[in-house]
Formats: sequence, structure tokens, C-alpha cells
Amino acid sequence: MNQRIGILGGGQLGKMLYSAGSQLDMDLHFLDGQPDCPVAKVAPSVQVGGLKDPKAILAFGADKDILTIEIEKVNTAVLEELRQSGKKVFPQPHVIELIQDKGRQKEFYASDDIPSSDFALYHSKEAARSEVSSGRWTYPFVQKMRTDGYDGRGVHMIRSEADWDDAFPNNFLIEAAVDIKKELAVVTCTDTQGHTICYDPVEMVFHPEANLLLYQLAPADVSASIRTSAQKLAKDVAQKYGVVGLLAVELFVDQEDQLLVNEVAPRPHNSGHHTIEACYTSQYENHLRAISGLPLGDHGLISPSLLLNILGNPECSGPVHYEGMEKVLAIAGANVHLYGKTMTKPYRKMGHINLLDPDTSVLVERYQQILQTLKVITK
Amino acid sequence: MNQRIGILGGGQLGKMLYSAGSQLDMDLHFLDGQPDCPVAKVAPSVQVGGLKDPKAILAFGADKDILTIEIEKVNTAVLEELRQSGKKVFPQPHVIELIQDKGRQKEFYASDDIPSSDFALYHSKEAARSEVSSGRWTYPFVQKMRTDGYDGRGVHMIRSEADWDDAFPNNFLIEAAVDIKKELAVVTCTDTQGHTICYDPVEMVFHPEANLLLYQLAPADVSASIRTSAQKLAKDVAQKYGVVGLLAVELFVDQEDQLLVNEVAPRPHNSGHHTIEACYTSQYENHLRAISGLPLGDHGLISPSLLLNILGNPECSGPVHYEGMEKVLAIAGANVHLYGKTMTKPYRKMGHINLLDPDTSVLVERYQQILQTLKVITK
Repeated sequence: MNQRIGILGGGQLGKMLYSAGSQLDMDLHFLDGQPDCPVAKVAPSVQVGGLKDPKAILAFGADKDILTIEIEKVNTAVLEELRQSGKKVFPQPHVIELIQDKGRQKEFYASDDIPSSDFALYHSKEAARSEVSSGRWTYPFVQKMRTDGYDGRGVHMIRSEADWDDAFPNNFLIEAAVDIKKELAVVTCTDTQGHTICYDPVEMVFHPEANLLLYQLAPADVSASIRTSAQKLAKDVAQKYGVVGLLAVELFVDQEDQLLVNEVAPRPHNSGHHTIEACYTSQYENHLRAISGLPLGDHGLISPSLLLNILGNPECSGPVHYEGMEKVLAIAGANVHLYGKTMTKPYRKMGHINLLDPDTSVLVERYQQILQTLKVITK
Repeated sequence: MNQRIGILGGGQLGKMLYSAGSQLDMDLHFLDGQPDCPVAKVAPSVQVGGLKDPKAILAFGADKDILTIEIEKVNTAVLEELRQSGKKVFPQPHVIELIQDKGRQKEFYASDDIPSSDFALYHSKEAARSEVSSGRWTYPFVQKMRTDGYDGRGVHMIRSEADWDDAFPNNFLIEAAVDIKKELAVVTCTDTQGHTICYDPVEMVFHPEANLLLYQLAPADVSASIRTSAQKLAKDVAQKYGVVGLLAVELFVDQEDQLLVNEVAPRPHNSGHHTIEACYTSQYENHLRAISGLPLGDHGLISPSLLLNILGNPECSGPVHYEGMEKVLAIAGANVHLYGKTMTKPYRKMGHINLLDPDTSVLVERYQQILQTLKVITK
């Protein structure tokens, strides 16, 4: 464990990687464009530099043995250069590059027999609209930017002609709308020997009317057969990418109980935050083990859990204040994680809370309690 | 949570406090005499200075709102000065001072009706031996240094006349030997409102012949009535000390199932290491909550666990190497904590492993496996 590990990105995922690594006395270093990123507050070795900046990445990588990422938006060409110079780079640069482009992701699923919704790539609205006219697509469907989407940004529902007005202008894909029964995610981790583990599927629970994520439940409330199929599919995806380290696989379950791959992320993922307290070994520790050539740890679930994101109030921007936090801390089984962001913005991910309890109905009750108590506002 | 917290001591307990505090975005700073202490490797704000050095402590405390400790051997007079200048200091300096002196600890138990073994204080061997002659003590009994004992150091069994030769010369106490059935520990935590919680009693399991701690089990294998009595007694002790924050209470169960207080520590304790993974809220987080005036978190046990210390091989001194660690990492439910000490010494605490499993016999099996696999040697 004496290898020097360089991590591109110093956000909350980096912060949680740091915590996992320091428990094992791993030697972790970070690169981030923002001097006040979450990791900078907690880790002694953080270098300031852009994640697309060749000079910054080369300088950062020069004295590292292993390089990894906590965000996909990085310069993969420079990472490939570092890899060819003898550094270990996981996830491998070609995998990051493929995943950065949602168009190429979809082509990959199509060519590798991975079930995913129907899609097509377009360079302009005009090209897409003419295919709507010719009957290739019927409303509603989904428009997605091929690159730079993040946390729901870069996704646009097109329900009728009128929705084209504020559609993305170019370089997008159209996906058939899936009649979704449930949304699941399976976090996988693959070691350097190619052995893949799959965490229990988690379920994103949405508001019955508004398209609003309420919370995430582990394990997902699905049949044993869907659970097994989801893990099998996620493992298949990870193996076909040939990735080393984490790959989070987001899945749709449609009304016919068919599983479809939505998107993947080759890094720690929001859908694995609960693994810190709810699993024997967290996604963060397993990622670090994987890229270090160590055996993976036990990914079993210790306890059912409910995860909610602490989001910036849509009305507030400015120095953050967590109103009601004292009451939340008193709630049994509540594990509060604050990312240390000083400024709140509408819907910004400021932290998360992982609730643990053997009884799911208790979890939902406590979630309601938190919802009524905690307000992320400005001072 | 915007208070500046200063922690005296930067050892492994400080490192684990740091990890708990950074999850909650607490603002933690450390003072330690060693520039290469475990915390210095992981936390950005570590000041070098002696924990008995008035100038260093005053300078460190000047810009802090709250001060706490992770080791008792500190200058309590200076902490009291800081307290009187308006800083919050928990545990309170007079409590640390009382606990530093094992003689005063015993007097405190005697005067406050807390069950503890018979004892007497002595200034010289001669004084003690004359009381042995007069029949006040019969062999075997225990000799303890009043101050500066640590991790078993400062304790000497006197079984016969001959054992006086290498006994401590002065400023010690004699304690009656207890016919011990079990050794337990209860970690308590008290908030600023005086509300005390007690973690489940843990049990130290010793080698049946050698006086050697093998591992620690949570929960302790005791009857419900002993469990309740142990928690009640520990709570009583914490309340009588009037301490804010953690107080670990070490207990003997004698052959008649009577509970006796052995010693206490007003800080995170080895007997609470398992709480990181095995309890809803760890001792570390609860200590930080307590001293910050926040409500305490759920101290319930999520899973049975077995804790073993990773100790330096008695034959080795030098740069540490953990032979067999890869195999240990592959053991299901094993949470490895390495403190980041670069040099190993005989019996030095280098880390610990917390095993989690619902089945105690599985825990013991895995412990045996680790024992045969892991060697803490030099490179």
C-alpha cells in the first residue's frame, strides 16, 4: 500500500475516497481546478489545476504510481499518454472516453447486445425533426446532450412540437421514452484480475407525480429474480467495458419487468453512498483496493438503508446554513455527511444522509421527519 | 458546526476523531509533539508542540472555541487557564487531572460509593512492605504507578516477596487482586446537558493461561442482568465525574458476578474502536457531537463484531511491513484500520481490524485466520 495514488477531481466523491484511503494508510493526492473544493478542506495534498489542462495533469501524474478519477470530465488523451509512459490508470482512459460520450455509450450497448432503449444520434434539431415527421420517433421521447451532461442536466423531455423550442441545438441523441416501473442502480467493482463484484441493487424512489427523486433505498424493493438479473446485467456491462475499478450501472425496469441499461459512470456514484455505513466494504474502499491491485472487500449489505441527498434550496444562493440540523442529528440511525461546500446554490448537492434501520417503513418515516426538519438556506 | 475545535494529541485516536469530524464538516485542528504523528499524515492543520508545554498549548488554544484531548497526559493547569478565559474545554480539566492520578481515581470511587477493589496509596516500597508484614495485604496483589501508566505499562503483579525487586520504587498504589471472571468495558458519552448514553458492554477475551489480550467482542457474552448492571454502573461513574464527552469505563466481573470499576479514560478508547462500523454512531462522532453541544447519535449496535489490535512483533523494530495483509483484506467483513506509523516496535499498536458478522463463532474463526496470516515485521 505504498503506491502513490493521484485522483483527478476533489469534489465530494474525492472526499469520501480520501476518508476510505486514509483508514488504510493509502497515499492519496488530488488535482482540482478549484482551490476551495471539498477535498482541499480535509486532505493535506491537493494541487490546483484544471482537469482538461494537459500541463497540469502531466505535472500531477509525474510522481504518481496510479491515477484515477472521481469525475468523468477529464482530459483522456493526457491520461492515455501517462498510461503509455508506464503509469497505472484506472478506469482506463479509453473507457472514460467512451463513457463521456452518451452517443458512443449507446452504440456500445447496441453492438454488444446490452439491452438499452432505442436511440439515434443527430447533429441538428432539423435532422431530428425530419425523422419525427417521417415517423421514426413518436412523442414523447428523450433528448440528451452527447457530452457534458451531469446530474440531470443535459436531459430534455420532448413531449410535443412545442418542446423543440428549448431543446439542445446540436450534437445530441434521441432515446425512446421507456415506460418506467422502477429505476435501479447496481454499483460494480472489478479488480485487476478481472473479477467483478456487484453490490445489491438500489432503487431510486420518485415522487408519484412530479419527476423528482425523493430518496434511494437499499436493497431495492424488487423480486429475487429482478435482483439477480440486474446484478447479472451490471456485471456483464462492467466486463464488456473491461473497466478496472468502479462502474455504476443505472437501470430501468419497464412495465414488462424488462431491464434496460440507462447510463453508467466509471467512478464512485451517488447510488453507492450508502455503502459507507450499510455495507461491509464501501464502494470507495473497493475502488481504491481495485486500482491498487488488492483483493476486493466484502460488498454484502449489513442493514437496509435509505439515502437522501441534501440539496440546496431552489430559492437560495449564498453562504450555506443548515437549519434544523441539530434535530436531524438526533434522529436514530441517521448518518449525516456534509461535503463542506461553503456556498449553496439551487439543487446543489451539499451532502447526504444515510439512514439505517432493519425496518423499511421506519426508514421512510424518518425520511419524512428529516424532510420536514432540514432546510438548506443562506445565513 | 462552525466552531473551531482544537484537539491535544495526534495519535490514532486523533486520526479517527478527524475522520468522524470531517464527515460532518467540523473544523478540527491538532497539537502534537511529534511532527510524524498519525494525524499529521492525514489532516491539513497539525501544529507541533508538547502537550505539557504551557506556551505551545496557550498558542494553540488562542484561536479555538472548543478544546479536547485524545490522550490524558496533558498540562491540565494550562487547559484550566484556557477554560477560565472563556474557551470550552471538554473533558473538563479537573476531570482529566483526577483521572491522570490512579490514586485519586480510587479515592474518588471509594468516597462516591462506586464499587472498586480495595486499595491503599504508598510513597515507598518500605511503607507498603511493612503493611504486608502487618497483614494488611496478602499475596498476590497488584502494584500500580499513580501516574504515567499506559497500555499495561505501570502495572506490576506482586505474587511473592521476590516480586518486590522489580516493583516501582515510589508513588504507587496497591490494589487487591480480583478473582476475575471477565473483563468488560462500557464506553459512555455525556452531552453538555448532562445526558449520558452507554454503548453495549464489550468483553476483552484473554488467553486462558497467558495474561494476554486476544480480542474484544461486542456485545459481551454476559447475562442480560450483568449487561444492564454494567451500563448502569458506567453511567453512574460518568455522572459522578460530571464529565462532558466520552468516558470509557473498564470493569471487572468477579467470580460472584459482582462488578468492580477498574479504570476509566476520558477520551476515545480502544474498547470503542468497533463502534466505527458496528454501531449507528461511533464513539468518535459522539465525542465531537458532545463537546460541540450537539445531540448525541444513536449508539445502538448494528452487528456483532470482534476487534483485534494489530501489534508490532515483539522481535522487530524498524520500518514496518505488514506481511499477509493482502490475504487479510480478502477476509469477509474485515475492516482494516492502519494508523500510518512508519516504524514498528515490540507490541506497538499499529492498527486494528474490526470483523463484522451476525455469528460470533464465524468471527472467532476469522480471527484465527488473521492471526495465522498477518505478521507485523520490518522490511
